[in-house]
Amino acid sequence: MTDEQTEYTLYYWPGIQGRGEFVRLTLEAAGATYRDIAREPEDQGGGPGAIRDVLEGLDGQQPPAFAPPVLEVDGSTYAQTANICQFLGRRHGLAGTSQQELHRVHQVQLTVHDCLTEAHDTHHPISIAEYYEDQKDAARRRAAFFVEQRIPKFLGHFDAVLGYTDGPFLLGEDLSYGDLAVFQLLEGLNYAFPRGYRRGADSLNDLAALREAVSQQPGVKAYLDSDRRIPFNEKGIFRHYPELDLSD
Amino acid sequence: MTDEQTEYTLYYWPGIQGRGEFVRLTLEAAGATYRDIAREPEDQGGGPGAIRDVLEGLDGQQPPAFAPPVLEVDGSTYAQTANICQFLGRRHGLAGTSQQELHRVHQVQLTVHDCLTEAHDTHHPISIAEYYEDQKDAARRRAAFFVEQRIPKFLGHFDAVLGYTDGPFLLGEDLSYGDLAVFQLLEGLNYAFPRGYRRGADSLNDLAALREAVSQQPGVKAYLDSDRRIPFNEKGIFRHYPELDLSD
Repeated sequence: MTDEQTEYTLYYWPGIQGRGEFVRLTLEAAGATYRDIAREPEDQGGGPGAIRDVLEGLDGQQPPAFAPPVLEVDGSTYAQTANICQFLGRRHGLAGTSQQELHRVHQVQLTVHDCLTEAHDTHHPISIAEYYEDQKDAARRRAAFFVEQRIPKFLGHFDAVLGYTDGPFLLGEDLSYGDLAVFQLLEGLNYAFPRGYRRGADSLNDLAALREAVSQQPGVKAYLDSDRRIPFNEKGIFRHYPELDLSD
Repeated sequence: MTDEQTEYTLYYWPGIQGRGEFVRLTLEAAGATYRDIAREPEDQGGGPGAIRDVLEGLDGQQPPAFAPPVLEVDGSTYAQTANICQFLGRRHGLAGTSQQELHRVHQVQLTVHDCLTEAHDTHHPISIAEYYEDQKDAARRRAAFFVEQRIPKFLGHFDAVLGYTDGPFLLGEDLSYGDLAVFQLLEGLNYAFPRGYRRGADSLNDLAALREAVSQQPGVKAYLDSDRRIPFNEKGIFRHYPELDLSD
């Protein structure tokens, strides 16, 4: 299944950043080689069919997964975004060294994911099986709470965590997948809720320093400048619907 | 801060099972000694004040945490439920041995938490800062989707994962914190949505076998029979509001 020259195969929706982006950023920061298989042509094993096959367990060779992203490595599959990032982080020196560091990084990653789920639910508060247009009233109410109270609370928290360390990153001078997660969250919030983000991030200097430092990491910088980075759009988690942002 | 004779101090809301229950179950299955500090009297350092202090980082000795549960051990604190359970699982032989097993167990735990968040949001689809009564219409719509489509999907997934192994547990014969998480999810769904649960779990034999096997584990059984197990109630994540369950 996996090309001999690549270490990893990522299975994720081809048109969005979504949760897969946390895995992509970790792979890119690690300088790992990977296939982003669903972005390849269907007649070469790519497309949505590849995702369906891996979720079902690759013909019984692997346990099923609930949802993408899934990462395949050495014939084994790993699912759940934070779990994949932890796996990669350990293999590539992006997860800390002591048990304490490992769990501190993971704690931040999981907190980012909590915020991510809330950000998603601003446009789909009722059901992912219904259109945004059919849940717009609930979306406005949920988004108001999110931008007014939750964004400031989450951002303030991450800034306070950074205040506990020396250096721009969660572990000080050493980049971890937790930093990549915070970075991606900031990018997404800034895209979807520019007014809410600006107010929430205002004067959070440690957070601004992290965002800048991550963006300048060689692997990350090259990735962000490449066409491998899918632009934010209104099919992903972070959608820019101006009516859901903070009012002026 | 920590009593000399206990290994761990858990900081979690005293009146509910909530997310803290996944930690309590792991501690109990491990046979560990712990203080459930917020259930102790305020004048002995307990109550909600203890939670506030640990979230703020115990006077700067530890990084802040976003929300309870928090576990304190050897002067260090760990937050995020799945992260705490992974930490405990490794220390007490409840997390698998190979890297592959470790990440498979964690994958299941995180999938349980996704379902848990959705279960919570059935009664609070708009905002945790508003009463259920003020978001009842949205709650009914979200709950309908959850009981009709999401419960069967999640339960079918966990049953399929169990079908991949021999023995009642995710790793076969060896209990892990992932099994405890699935067990707690089943207990909670059965309490909150008895009709939806019954239909969703119907004929899922591997799942039924796991639920039974976990409940018979000595540490778990003793815990469930004790007054340390707080009963389900309508302040926690799993709330029995009949109007949100499947109709007959």
